[in-house]
Amino acid sequence: MLKVKSVAIDTFKENVAYLHRDCPLYRTEGFQALMKIEIYLKKSDTPILAVLNIVDDSNIVNVDELGLSKQAFKQFDKKQGVKVSLAPAKPPLSLTAVHKKIAGETLNKDDFHLICQDILENRYSKMEIAAFLVACSHTGLEREEIFFLTKAMVESGKQLNWGESIVVDKHCIGGIPGNRTTMIVMPIIAAHGMLMPKTSSRAITSPAGTADTMEVFAQVELSIEAMKKIVRQHRGMLTWGGTAKLAPVDDILISVERPLAMDSTGQLVASILSKKIAAGSTHLLIDIPVGPSAKVHQSHDALKLRKLFEYIGDLFGLHIDVVVSDGSQPIGNGIGPALEARDVQQVLSNQENAPRDLREKSLKLAGRILEFDPDIRGGQGYIIARDILESGRAYEKMQAIIDAQGRVENTQKKARLTQPVIAKTTGYVHAIDNLKIATIASLAGAPIDKYAGIHLIKKVADKVTKGDVLFIIYADFNSNFDFATEFAHENEVYSLKNTAPVAQDNYFI
Amino acid sequence: MLKVKSVAIDTFKENVAYLHRDCPLYRTEGFQALMKIEIYLKKSDTPILAVLNIVDDSNIVNVDELGLSKQAFKQFDKKQGVKVSLAPAKPPLSLTAVHKKIAGETLNKDDFHLICQDILENRYSKMEIAAFLVACSHTGLEREEIFFLTKAMVESGKQLNWGESIVVDKHCIGGIPGNRTTMIVMPIIAAHGMLMPKTSSRAITSPAGTADTMEVFAQVELSIEAMKKIVRQHRGMLTWGGTAKLAPVDDILISVERPLAMDSTGQLVASILSKKIAAGSTHLLIDIPVGPSAKVHQSHDALKLRKLFEYIGDLFGLHIDVVVSDGSQPIGNGIGPALEARDVQQVLSNQENAPRDLREKSLKLAGRILEFDPDIRGGQGYIIARDILESGRAYEKMQAIIDAQGRVENTQKKARLTQPVIAKTTGYVHAIDNLKIATIASLAGAPIDKYAGIHLIKKVADKVTKGDVLFIIYADFNSNFDFATEFAHENEVYSLKNTAPVAQDNYFI
Repeated sequence: MLKVKSVAIDTFKENVAYLHRDCPLYRTEGFQALMKIEIYLKKSDTPILAVLNIVDDSNIVNVDELGLSKQAFKQFDKKQGVKVSLAPAKPPLSLTAVHKKIAGETLNKDDFHLICQDILENRYSKMEIAAFLVACSHTGLEREEIFFLTKAMVESGKQLNWGESIVVDKHCIGGIPGNRTTMIVMPIIAAHGMLMPKTSSRAITSPAGTADTMEVFAQVELSIEAMKKIVRQHRGMLTWGGTAKLAPVDDILISVERPLAMDSTGQLVASILSKKIAAGSTHLLIDIPVGPSAKVHQSHDALKLRKLFEYIGDLFGLHIDVVVSDGSQPIGNGIGPALEARDVQQVLSNQENAPRDLREKSLKLAGRILEFDPDIRGGQGYIIARDILESGRAYEKMQAIIDAQGRVENTQKKARLTQPVIAKTTGYVHAIDNLKIATIASLAGAPIDKYAGIHLIKKVADKVTKGDVLFIIYADFNSNFDFATEFAHENEVYSLKNTAPVAQDNYFI
Repeated sequence: MLKVKSVAIDTFKENVAYLHRDCPLYRTEGFQALMKIEIYLKKSDTPILAVLNIVDDSNIVNVDELGLSKQAFKQFDKKQGVKVSLAPAKPPLSLTAVHKKIAGETLNKDDFHLICQDILENRYSKMEIAAFLVACSHTGLEREEIFFLTKAMVESGKQLNWGESIVVDKHCIGGIPGNRTTMIVMPIIAAHGMLMPKTSSRAITSPAGTADTMEVFAQVELSIEAMKKIVRQHRGMLTWGGTAKLAPVDDILISVERPLAMDSTGQLVASILSKKIAAGSTHLLIDIPVGPSAKVHQSHDALKLRKLFEYIGDLFGLHIDVVVSDGSQPIGNGIGPALEARDVQQVLSNQENAPRDLREKSLKLAGRILEFDPDIRGGQGYIIARDILESGRAYEKMQAIIDAQGRVENTQKKARLTQPVIAKTTGYVHAIDNLKIATIASLAGAPIDKYAGIHLIKKVADKVTKGDVLFIIYADFNSNFDFATEFAHENEVYSLKNTAPVAQDNYFI
């Protein structure tokens, strides 16, 4: 038995345990550095898993101690000195199923359940998770397998129940910078009286997630109790989904999928739907942007994806409506939390200079969601949404929700460094590369630096003269600024042509 | 600029850097825990890559210091206090090629070269390597791709040149416990006067590698200079390949492949051949054991594998001979470094009780290698090999080489704990499960504990009566002993039938 000691090392999402080389356990049990170990308070408890580091310095840990990184220590309720026992972690049994998948076989319900259980209990290393994801991506998953995976992910965490027959949600499959429609749609829907308890994610590789942008205005990390109280009173909220522990296996898979830049259809569908089902949604609007630099390039691929969402949604009794939208450029003018928050503020307060595309797309999405209400006639949703926005009721609702979640003192702070990017030729804008815009904003420091990002001056259909400013880069730190401006100068972000594009007033295809 | 400080934490093969949370660089450069960073002595140098941990304790690192784990510190020539600068590591460019492979495309020579270069420079995380391996395993690699991968792996490290026209080597594709033929073949070949500068690997998941077993007798970690001197004088050696830095990318791939229990044909061929080509071999004998619990289950799969070895070998001008051998059981009686070393010692010293299968298989392999000598008539190799063994010349050669490499004082130590495993029924042994035997010996502590493992009492064709001892487990540590005996009692390791198997005197199929 060893005494637990907190070691002040932050290892992010990875549990690390520190054992002194002269600890009798080290040799007698054949432990090795980087080995995975199980740590028990009592033999009957579920163990905590951690990666072992071996220490030769008694100032870090003594021979009778087990050091734990901050993350691991938290899981022992911060009890310094508590006695624990160790054992080498056994390899997860469900790896057999992963090998079946690598060999191209189809997995069953139990396989997916066991894999998700082992991942949840931290028994998979990141490379084992990568093997699972690549194997699933490669063969693709059968429709049935996507259902099993979704179900296993839902069951890996908590499930919310709001006790009403219509609980609405919306989700964009992503890939379009800006596009902060949720922050306009939610207050419109809540102002109408429909229940929209929205949980959103933070950005992982994109320059901002909805939770990051909302955080410019309000607290987003709330307890489930606090969320329930706000939703009862205001019919809506916009919080970070992480505290609610909804489909936590999804978060673990994403933490490997994103750095690998993997985006397989099966995983995408299972990821989105497991979160919504766990969040207690009954009606869901899914937005699939289509464009040359969007996630989906062709309308027929969007159609296939729609069928898949519908198939899985039906099996869970989740009512799904899918819209296919224009993904030829970012939506709104700002990219990065604070810059996007400004766009949202302009739309909600009906300002003259509010980005028109963000406003129109949000109204159309809100309209479709309002039509989940059996009392609203098909096609009337948009008009009702516009009335709610123009009357100022959406703005008021948002202010009430911001106050309820906890208002953040808005300093109107701006980034320290700016760099305008200039057109090298003359012409009309036909497309703006979403991926490159996202890369530049990320390099500039978004979302960790809330004020970093991009402000787009020219959008699709605008006429540009050589020397005009296309967009402005905002950054606070020198190295970020250098990376972002260098990338912007080396890459063609805007597609310019000599003739104007055909007018595109419909944001849905 | 930060001052390097050695932090006495052993993180095995992973470089870890420790930065204080109050270090000005932490916030201003947007560093995060678990991020990969580049560490420079001078901006013009190739950086060292490490994973970042954030520290809140000045006893570990100060705000003006960068702590380095033992592995990372070694790479700075152990210079305490030297000034370094940091930058976030850029994602490896060759990941684009990995994504192409995940999507099922064929990669070209440059793709493989760039991937291997990035892996060598530590730019890939283990999960990125796993993604590459699973993608290659899944589609399989085209013959041309295996050639490109082999070439890129050879070029990733040093290449030895022995300056002779015949430099022989042997390799077994693995999967058969015991099977320590190399330690008998090498001294026979060297005694004949052919050049056999053998480098071998240590076990990664198996209970012993040839290098682990040789280490029971002699030092195996020698400098290239020391190797060359020994080979000049004795015509042979048996050392660990790691110090020679031959095809180092192969070692990195293996470090991910083995824990994932992945074994794809393309990787197998590229791995074996890149090591041999880098080691300067001109003639190579490959042993492919076939059996129900061997790596290859059917003769026709062995044939396909042989063709692949020949195809790639020809492209490099490496002369390859392939033998297909009986893989229905372990070869020899001992499993685990010390127990296998005892078998080798018995064969080399022509003892009455030496394991017959190990002796016969070694003589047949040695005979085939001797026939690489143009002066030896086809079919005569076996007889010459047997003469060299029986005359004691192989034994003497081995003793001379052991002395040259550095003799280890052999204490004849035995493991502390033993457990005989008893037959539950009566019958004839038809097969012994190689995988289960390897698992038991590994659980018992081999190869980290050199004395742990298994001694097989009954082999294929033996008659067994209920209650007879089938094999004995050896272990030193209680938990290892418990794991191994538990597994042995829960699994059927021996296949017994009522009738005797057809006599099998030929160890090649």
